[in-house]
Amino acid sequence: MRPFVFVNIAMSADGKISTKERRQVKISGTEDFSRVDRIKAASDAIMVGIGTVLADNPSLTVKSPDLRAERRAGGKDEHPIRVVVDSAARTPLDADILHKGTGKRIIAVSRKAPRERVEALREHATVVVTGEDSVDLQALLEELYRQGVRRLMVEGGGTLIWGLFEQGLVDELQTFIGNIVIGGKDAPTPADGEGFLREADFARLRLIEAVQLDDGLLIRWSVENR
Amino acid sequence: MRPFVFVNIAMSADGKISTKERRQVKISGTEDFSRVDRIKAASDAIMVGIGTVLADNPSLTVKSPDLRAERRAGGKDEHPIRVVVDSAARTPLDADILHKGTGKRIIAVSRKAPRERVEALREHATVVVTGEDSVDLQALLEELYRQGVRRLMVEGGGTLIWGLFEQGLVDELQTFIGNIVIGGKDAPTPADGEGFLREADFARLRLIEAVQLDDGLLIRWSVENR
Repeated sequence: MRPFVFVNIAMSADGKISTKERRQVKISGTEDFSRVDRIKAASDAIMVGIGTVLADNPSLTVKSPDLRAERRAGGKDEHPIRVVVDSAARTPLDADILHKGTGKRIIAVSRKAPRERVEALREHATVVVTGEDSVDLQALLEELYRQGVRRLMVEGGGTLIWGLFEQGLVDELQTFIGNIVIGGKDAPTPADGEGFLREADFARLRLIEAVQLDDGLLIRWSVENR
Repeated sequence: MRPFVFVNIAMSADGKISTKERRQVKISGTEDFSRVDRIKAASDAIMVGIGTVLADNPSLTVKSPDLRAERRAGGKDEHPIRVVVDSAARTPLDADILHKGTGKRIIAVSRKAPRERVEALREHATVVVTGEDSVDLQALLEELYRQGVRRLMVEGGGTLIWGLFEQGLVDELQTFIGNIVIGGKDAPTPADGEGFLREADFARLRLIEAVQLDDGLLIRWSVENR
């Protein structure tokens, strides 16, 4: 058993999630910001890859005081469980995700992660060890399910999202398409990594809806996992 | 003076136009196929980069007999002028674009293109020479305008499209988003090349419309050139 997994990502009209220097850029606007905060508050956990932590230092907290109050009123922590997929335990000890806001953190590492780094992270988070050289995503999702996570939001980056798609672990894909072109063969995209080579292997989607939001478009796809 | 330039490209939901092996893949369906044939027939010229010619060997002809008949009835060639941006004159002499269908071909090369290659191409196409090491796109568009091209369709690939965006030479971007995830950090995207680094430089778009087509979505953006 694993949680319902949905990916939420903002990309430019040409499919980039930032510049090739991985600079965090404004792709959406205030409407999408509020939407993301709402779906975050409605999730049991929110997950990112270590690349996103190193590039953006996100706190992944719920921003709206009202939404935090709603969560508290429902007997929950103010923020969803924050999960970092971090095979080599590279999360900086002063990362915002470890310090901003109350609530549980989980750092998922592999067995190759240096022991002293893992011990240092244990001061700030629950550490889950799965996989030899890289985190076993399937095993991690099963562990999250055991810890009560039923709805998991994935915010990036492209390497983690690729890993989830590669293993058929995504149920829904939400992309906000912003009204910009960034360009760049080396700029990160919503699904990086190796990529599928054969058409038979492509992840297949079904369009749920497309709605105009800010100056762009929000597209929701369900994933047809075989 | 230059033609109205619109880019038409199909990409996966994660912003890829093919696999990292540049294998041509089915992203759209029959409705989009007909739409592309119509907008091609309504164009004075259709342009691709040499990478697309080498990877896909497209003929870029109008497929529908009715649309070809309409063009003839309007006093036009059956097919729009086919243009290849080919700085080093690498278009194979047996490329479909040089042989399939009637009508004019233009191969745009730079001054660094080997003379014997250029001479060989002249047997099959008009050769336009602009730019030192790579084709001067602005000058090429001006030359196309002088040759009567008022509406130019660009079909890819990502390097040519990036070059046009970089120089502010695109008026409209049409993307069909297919119901697949391809993935791959090295898979080609609608705008590759160097990419913009500063937000102030990003091409800015205005959403014209988004409509469901086949199992995906057609998005039309106008480009706000400054």
